[in-house]
Amino acid sequence: MIQEEIKLRVRYAETDQMGFVYYGNYAQYLELGRVAVMKKAGVSYRELELSGIGLPVKDMNIQFLRAATYDDEIRVMTTIDTMPTNRITFYYKIYRELDLLVEASTTLFFMDKASLRPLRMPNWVENQLKPFFN
Amino acid sequence: MIQEEIKLRVRYAETDQMGFVYYGNYAQYLELGRVAVMKKAGVSYRELELSGIGLPVKDMNIQFLRAATYDDEIRVMTTIDTMPTNRITFYYKIYRELDLLVEASTTLFFMDKASLRPLRMPNWVENQLKPFFN
Amino acid sequence: MIQEEIKLRVRYAETDQMGFVYYGNYAQYLELGRVAVMKKAGVSYRELELSGIGLPVKDMNIQFLRAATYDDEIRVMTTIDTMPTNRITFYYKIYRELDLLVEASTTLFFMDKASLRPLRMPNWVENQLKPFFN
Amino acid sequence: MIQEEIKLRVRYAETDQMGFVYYGNYAQYLELGRVAVMKKAGVSYRELELSGIGLPVKDMNIQFLRAATYDDEIRVMTTIDTMPTNRITFYYKIYRELDLLVEASTTLFFMDKASLRPLRMPNWVENQLKPFFN
Repeated sequence: MIQEEIKLRVRYAETDQMGFVYYGNYAQYLELGRVAVMKKAGVSYRELELSGIGLPVKDMNIQFLRAATYDDEIRVMTTIDTMPTNRITFYYKIYRELDLLVEASTTLFFMDKASLRPLRMPNWVENQLKPFFN
Repeated sequence: MIQEEIKLRVRYAETDQMGFVYYGNYAQYLELGRVAVMKKAGVSYRELELSGIGLPVKDMNIQFLRAATYDDEIRVMTTIDTMPTNRITFYYKIYRELDLLVEASTTLFFMDKASLRPLRMPNWVENQLKPFFN
Repeated sequence: MIQEEIKLRVRYAETDQMGFVYYGNYAQYLELGRVAVMKKAGVSYRELELSGIGLPVKDMNIQFLRAATYDDEIRVMTTIDTMPTNRITFYYKIYRELDLLVEASTTLFFMDKASLRPLRMPNWVENQLKPFFN
Repeated sequence: MIQEEIKLRVRYAETDQMGFVYYGNYAQYLELGRVAVMKKAGVSYRELELSGIGLPVKDMNIQFLRAATYDDEIRVMTTIDTMPTNRITFYYKIYRELDLLVEASTTLFFMDKASLRPLRMPNWVENQLKPFFN
């Protein structure tokens, strides 16, 4: 298992007229969470793309339990709980202090950016992730 | 059952550097789809809010099957397939011509905007929706 | 001179907790306005990019006179008032019915997408635009 | 004069298919910059709004000199250079390391959120700002 937590502050731009974060904007918080957990494993998403490999999202499931509001400091805890194969499933919990605001998961797959076809997980990514799962 | 289809054209702003629509931006397309299906039933989301009632999203599930690209004309087909109670579940299919790009569902609930507490479905909304289900 | 008007409806996602369209989101409306005026001249922005040429924004000036709100139908009137050289300046007025909401201008330049260097206006674009200015 | 610098990392969501930050998204960076400079003066934007006062943007001028790309760490340096009256003008410079990417200014005014009418600068805000200008 590998897990990482990041802290964010809600931007004004991210709210909507209900006074809360617009539901679609949580996708950005999840993105930041999974980038952080990959970085913890030594995998830079930026470098992955520069090497010609994309990691598009295949599906997203998200439960909104409590709403985040402007200027809240929130924490995104992201987990990969089993060694990924050609797909990676990320689990997320977003908190404001001790309150759980959001639970989510996303599955992503490796894709060749030139051909837009699915790829096996690159060896160097596998080698970075393996030590966290055994 | 009630169903409505809308057409949209993908904005440049909605793409990301992968060259496709950013996965979080589909939430906006779903929003436009459900507003349209509600309008078909005679329920204006704008008026609902002006009457003091919000309709926040409780959960979203979304599968990304094919990617939409800049300037694509896409169709969002939105369905409510059973008479809602205090929650409404919307089902969505997003197409580009005959290709299915996205399948999704969201559940929303009625909320008193002042107290932020869940509400029963307003009578006038129920009366608008009922004729579509029997 | 070449001029085109488009109609848009304000999305919920575009509002912020002040209850109006977030000021940064007007940039998207301007984008849609200039794409439309280019299309009127027979220049598809999509095709321009596919031919390897980008059209990045060099500067933007925008005055917010009145605020747009959720579900408003707004009109973006976009004008190119002198024959562009290697840069194109677009002027915009955004209206809700007869009320002027926003006045803006942006200057864009042609860029080679591979080298990221400025380019002269492509001949085919020049030929499309010329008939509107004399 | 009062000045504050913040650091940000460019999100994937903020890029567009040109491979750079979408021009409209810089407005969010400016927002974060001015919130930070106000906070340095002891003025919380969140509290300002809770007290019934909004601070909408009246105009924005922005020059894009170099493009920011995904995962760049950028710095937003925000300055108020003369004591504000009923309007506040913020000046911004956005850097990536030593490269100047963006220069911008925005003017905002105080507004009563209930009546949507312009307001004089609240006394407590004036008192917080005054020590920085003399």
